[in-house]
Amino acid sequence: MKNVAVILAGCGVYDGSEINEAILTLLHIAKNGATYQCFAPDIEQLHTVNHLTGEVMTDKRNVLTEAARIARGEVKSLIELDITQFDALIVPGGFGAAKNLCNFAVKGIQASINNDVLNACKAFAQAKKPAGYMCIAPALIPFIYNNAQLTIGNDPDTAQALSLLGATHINCEVNNVVIDQSNKLVTTPAYMLAQTILDADAGIEKLVSSVLAIN
Amino acid sequence: MKNVAVILAGCGVYDGSEINEAILTLLHIAKNGATYQCFAPDIEQLHTVNHLTGEVMTDKRNVLTEAARIARGEVKSLIELDITQFDALIVPGGFGAAKNLCNFAVKGIQASINNDVLNACKAFAQAKKPAGYMCIAPALIPFIYNNAQLTIGNDPDTAQALSLLGATHINCEVNNVVIDQSNKLVTTPAYMLAQTILDADAGIEKLVSSVLAIN
Repeated sequence: MKNVAVILAGCGVYDGSEINEAILTLLHIAKNGATYQCFAPDIEQLHTVNHLTGEVMTDKRNVLTEAARIARGEVKSLIELDITQFDALIVPGGFGAAKNLCNFAVKGIQASINNDVLNACKAFAQAKKPAGYMCIAPALIPFIYNNAQLTIGNDPDTAQALSLLGATHINCEVNNVVIDQSNKLVTTPAYMLAQTILDADAGIEKLVSSVLAIN
Repeated sequence: MKNVAVILAGCGVYDGSEINEAILTLLHIAKNGATYQCFAPDIEQLHTVNHLTGEVMTDKRNVLTEAARIARGEVKSLIELDITQFDALIVPGGFGAAKNLCNFAVKGIQASINNDVLNACKAFAQAKKPAGYMCIAPALIPFIYNNAQLTIGNDPDTAQALSLLGATHINCEVNNVVIDQSNKLVTTPAYMLAQTILDADAGIEKLVSSVLAIN
């Protein structure tokens, strides 16, 4: 039975992990007969967004603490991730992936990546263990992999920025995935393109099964 | 195409809506070819729970604002619910159903129900439109229906409390539902019993398809 590490970035599309993507990821891991453990960095969120109005709130919230909402409390600090216990990594999207795990959402091609995230993700890359990144989470990939092929859907500005950072962007439909065989890396657009939960589900189902099919 | 109103109670199992249950509800509504609109009462949460530690935090959070995280911003205040626009109602669980929608979690058989929740849910009951309640959300049912048959799984204390409030409790497996034909009411234990997301998914899939099968 394969065991998958899932890195969360908070709880909510505008300042954390996209909740639909996170839950659909966990669902499809389980449907594929694998197990999972959620992780998140123990850091303050970049900011807290009122998801009803889109306005920034004064609340200070912690990424790990909020991620625990998605994981029903069963989440560990990212520094506890022991790669020897896992066969694969999956990172759902949401702005938190580009605000908390790295700062691509505010810095673009000047972005940097959180050090604990870098260490965890790079360990999977170096061990040649498969990984899946969805939605905007592929913005992390240029910091982790050399010469990666990836997709964030078809947004030209985001695609160009990731190309400038050294990745090769491939346009992709919402119900499909891009597989970089040499890096054992799978990406899908999810809510970069999804209009409905069924759109997101189709791509995430394919991403999870593709990641778990790689040896 | 059927349109389903979904009432959320916040965002997170310990102080709001159980996130897995909420997303699986939306997924299965969509898989059944129906559409949905999320609603939540515009009130302060009973409290905010740190989902990592279980401790109560000092944060004040609003049920509607936090529910917007699950709904990607697409949630309306419960007082805007126009029953003529909907064919059915579904209420996911999580402690928020028993802390924010009513106060059963703290008051037990002395509980009362939020007035906007009562009005919305009772409108479905009186119009003989089907409704589904999962996990601990069936604690709302005795305030809405007379002589209802329901399940919260098999917890004897909770079952007895709901019996004292006037409902008939029926023990139910996690992958099954209790259908009260005369009230057009469907309930399932979900995370009252679920050990895994697959357990929750099985019962919620059946609840949603059963609710949508009732005319």
